Amino acid sequence: MKSDIEIAREARMQPIAEIAGELGIPVEHLVPYGHTKAKVSLDYLQGLQDRADGKLILVTATSPTPAGEGKTTTSIGLADALRRSGRNASLCLREPSLGPCFGMKGGAAGGGYAQVVPMEDINLHFTGDMHAIGAAHNLLSAMIDNYIHWSNELRIDLRRISWPRVVDMNDRQLREIVTGCGGPANGFPMQSSFDITVASEVMAIFCLARNLEDLQQRLARIVIGQTRGELKPVTAEQVGASGAMTALLRDALAPNLVQSLENTPAFIHGGPFANIAHGCNSLIATRAALKLSDYVVTEAGFGADLGAEKFFNIKCRKSGLRPDAAVIVVTVRALKMHGGVAKEELTRENGEAVSKGLENLGRHIRNVGRFGVPVTVAINHFVSDTDAEIQLVKDYVAARGLEAHVCTSWADGGAGASALADTVAAIADTGRAQFHPLYDDEMSLWNKARTVAREIYGADDLQADKKIRDQFRQFEAEGYGHFPVCMAKTPYSFSTDPQLMGAPVNHSVKVRELKLAAGAEFLVVICGDIMRMPGLPRVPAANNIYVNEQGQIEGLF
Amino acid sequence: MKSDIEIAREARMQPIAEIAGELGIPVEHLVPYGHTKAKVSLDYLQGLQDRADGKLILVTATSPTPAGEGKTTTSIGLADALRRSGRNASLCLREPSLGPCFGMKGGAAGGGYAQVVPMEDINLHFTGDMHAIGAAHNLLSAMIDNYIHWSNELRIDLRRISWPRVVDMNDRQLREIVTGCGGPANGFPMQSSFDITVASEVMAIFCLARNLEDLQQRLARIVIGQTRGELKPVTAEQVGASGAMTALLRDALAPNLVQSLENTPAFIHGGPFANIAHGCNSLIATRAALKLSDYVVTEAGFGADLGAEKFFNIKCRKSGLRPDAAVIVVTVRALKMHGGVAKEELTRENGEAVSKGLENLGRHIRNVGRFGVPVTVAINHFVSDTDAEIQLVKDYVAARGLEAHVCTSWADGGAGASALADTVAAIADTGRAQFHPLYDDEMSLWNKARTVAREIYGADDLQADKKIRDQFRQFEAEGYGHFPVCMAKTPYSFSTDPQLMGAPVNHSVKVRELKLAAGAEFLVVICGDIMRMPGLPRVPAANNIYVNEQGQIEGLF
Repeated sequence: MKSDIEIAREARMQPIAEIAGELGIPVEHLVPYGHTKAKVSLDYLQGLQDRADGKLILVTATSPTPAGEGKTTTSIGLADALRRSGRNASLCLREPSLGPCFGMKGGAAGGGYAQVVPMEDINLHFTGDMHAIGAAHNLLSAMIDNYIHWSNELRIDLRRISWPRVVDMNDRQLREIVTGCGGPANGFPMQSSFDITVASEVMAIFCLARNLEDLQQRLARIVIGQTRGELKPVTAEQVGASGAMTALLRDALAPNLVQSLENTPAFIHGGPFANIAHGCNSLIATRAALKLSDYVVTEAGFGADLGAEKFFNIKCRKSGLRPDAAVIVVTVRALKMHGGVAKEELTRENGEAVSKGLENLGRHIRNVGRFGVPVTVAINHFVSDTDAEIQLVKDYVAARGLEAHVCTSWADGGAGASALADTVAAIADTGRAQFHPLYDDEMSLWNKARTVAREIYGADDLQADKKIRDQFRQFEAEGYGHFPVCMAKTPYSFSTDPQLMGAPVNHSVKVRELKLAAGAEFLVVICGDIMRMPGLPRVPAANNIYVNEQGQIEGLF
Repeated sequence: MKSDIEIAREARMQPIAEIAGELGIPVEHLVPYGHTKAKVSLDYLQGLQDRADGKLILVTATSPTPAGEGKTTTSIGLADALRRSGRNASLCLREPSLGPCFGMKGGAAGGGYAQVVPMEDINLHFTGDMHAIGAAHNLLSAMIDNYIHWSNELRIDLRRISWPRVVDMNDRQLREIVTGCGGPANGFPMQSSFDITVASEVMAIFCLARNLEDLQQRLARIVIGQTRGELKPVTAEQVGASGAMTALLRDALAPNLVQSLENTPAFIHGGPFANIAHGCNSLIATRAALKLSDYVVTEAGFGADLGAEKFFNIKCRKSGLRPDAAVIVVTVRALKMHGGVAKEELTRENGEAVSKGLENLGRHIRNVGRFGVPVTVAINHFVSDTDAEIQLVKDYVAARGLEAHVCTSWADGGAGASALADTVAAIADTGRAQFHPLYDDEMSLWNKARTVAREIYGADDLQADKKIRDQFRQFEAEGYGHFPVCMAKTPYSFSTDPQLMGAPVNHSVKVRELKLAAGAEFLVVICGDIMRMPGLPRVPAANNIYVNEQGQIEGLF
């Protein structure tokens, strides 16, 4: 069996100008990065505003398990299948983070015969967006401390700076640090931290900005800390950083175009975390794809309780995007885990566990329906799945009036998702989606969070200490009451306990911390321990990566 | 008077494929980054090995002063002039660092009508090389600490790790830090630091590597610290990082091609510090240029005592490059400062100060001659220079049997350096250079440093405490005795006291610290305070940078 990288190396890539040509993009509006990657000029995209949008299809999944769901693989296969059936389709995916490539083996560009390519580039530096976002973030960090070093006329409270630094690396050693040691020439000693770049608010802003001007204004509004005594919010604009940050991001903001193994156009642009941020690719890329193709397949991070909820409540709410259909990816293996089976036992047929695990799928189906978006289920096929197990899933889904299709895109590419493609396209074509966010802007911040906890997580209630409840009210007093909430919780359970798989009931969600993302325009509601800086494992994948005599990278996936 | 960025924006750039075509590079060997930047494929360059080399011309300067010398501007003007005269010429320059762009106003891509373009790109992210170097460096940092976190079987001494982290930002707050706070999950608490990316040994290695294989081997040999008790050196290979670091650098290692305002081909690739590293662009770029053009103009950092000495003793020694001619850039203003005049008085005619300051030029002329390379002097012209002052310089140079030419490339581009170009080309054509390094590989490390101090700096002697002298011997015992030395001292004086301008005598050079660069293959001999992480000024340039409504970057230079 070939590895992902072997399959990717054998890809018959078309020159990126031809991929762009398929979308009708004239070559002069491409900024090439090599021969198989390009950015599409923002000026050109601006000129498409009056065109009608294509259909928007969201791919989401059941709650993730170590068994794997294959959301990206299914997304790529679905887009390939739509294109194979003669439809004009494109993909919108997130940019992978560099750091995790060196930890666990496994890329973020699909797998098997459903990949986007050039996969090494996409997984490593790509077109430099992640580096630009990191540089913009760290410029603000340096300018805050430089401002404090020279004058601090604003009286920024050194104990209340909420803007960390970032690096695109899994580096646990930087989770908690003390900076400014060594005397007055090196600044004031302060407690600080590094997050991984994708956790930066700059990334979230980058992905929600409508254009360069909006980006610059949002960056200006970032709140980096509070003043001493009065606790007034201090912004990036007040330390004079937002213009230069925008300059660093100017080129990156144009969306990246690549292709799948089957030459389907793929926009891969922006990749925020799906817990402390909203977990989907850039609005600019999604809008571009909708103007340039009839069907756009996109995905959101983690399970539908996190990624899809935020896609709907944050990205679609703010931008006016109206999704036409949703696909929930499920695997028999994952259902067994939700049904209580250990990882080692997954290859053994176990209809009982599948049936029990279907509760998880069921709640995600119900949830997505609450946004008015019609659902189809994709069963991402593994060789160990039995016909009986698959039939259980199909019957369960059919009982809810929906269709489930087996997808074999990992093994067969677009050919493995043709039934899914036909169903989804037919649903999208009917225009029967009636998308609406789950809550209105006017609802109180507390009630927004409570609505998500009850309606999506199935919790009895939302809980918080008085201090946190006061903070909710404080943010409303400061004028942020119209923001949506961005819930940060474990992806492994509907509850805040990662061990509670399936569809837990009788649980309540406790808010531990609030974090304002004033530039991204949401309030992060943190429920549980959220890791913003991963570590490397005992034997990191990096140990086995090298460049061979032909100049090829070995050991990367 | 137009600003640099206004002039740069009006540039009539040719498509980079045409610039490459002028050098005979077929378009299929270019990796485009937009339409005016490209990398040249390493495979293609490998195939040129049997071609004869062009002539190599080094541009260096007197000891830098706040008055400015204009080495890059003169280099660009000289290359443009060579090309205007019908000669096949190209440029080799260093890549600018991102961080300083946000501190003091002023780019590193020439000035006036002698610039390389696209200047905003070159000064900001360019083709991502600096980011790749930073990522490779920080991957090693993360892997060292991860190795210690999980096992530390090698017994790396946590107090003796000499590998910092890097960021391409002026951020004094990170000069001295404590990492690993917050308990066992976050690693061991350690003292650590961040350098600016250009100070990384990875940058030095990148610039001295002959090819990808050599790069990987050099990265493997990086010494990151010592074992506990036995104090054995620990390498990047031992923590399993060097292969993955090479993977991160693979694409970056291909040299970048851009152009001057006058469309002269310019390779801009690699940019190490000129104090703790060797201060010139990549060997791969220089070799490529020599294979592809008849005349190659390159520059080295700071004054000739630092940049040229290292260009000769480190880069040329190891690679077999044989420079054919050298240009020493001088300004009347700088000579006045070396003659004792304050910055505020520089526009007033002062022949006496010029004459006194010429001692500095004289010693640099003598020094470059010691390497067997014929010298020409370029007087970079400022409007306040008087004819009488310029005549003093010309007479002084003529008395040494050399020529000095006034250059007005800042105002006139290549037309302002035609006399210089004719002289330098004529010298190079005679083949009369008899290049040789200043010392042999076999000389002891101490004597190598002493030779530079005496022959180049004009010092009476080299001094060091017993501890340092023992370290010199220790490095020899460990097998590094054949390395050249990389002297790190202030660029502002031949001595280690930045206040001693002109050509100080009766001074001695004290070694304060040694740092082995086992992958770069030199021993850094630190004489004085060397800043590896700059800070931002009270009013950083970033305060005035923004993106205007046309999407152009304002305030950057």
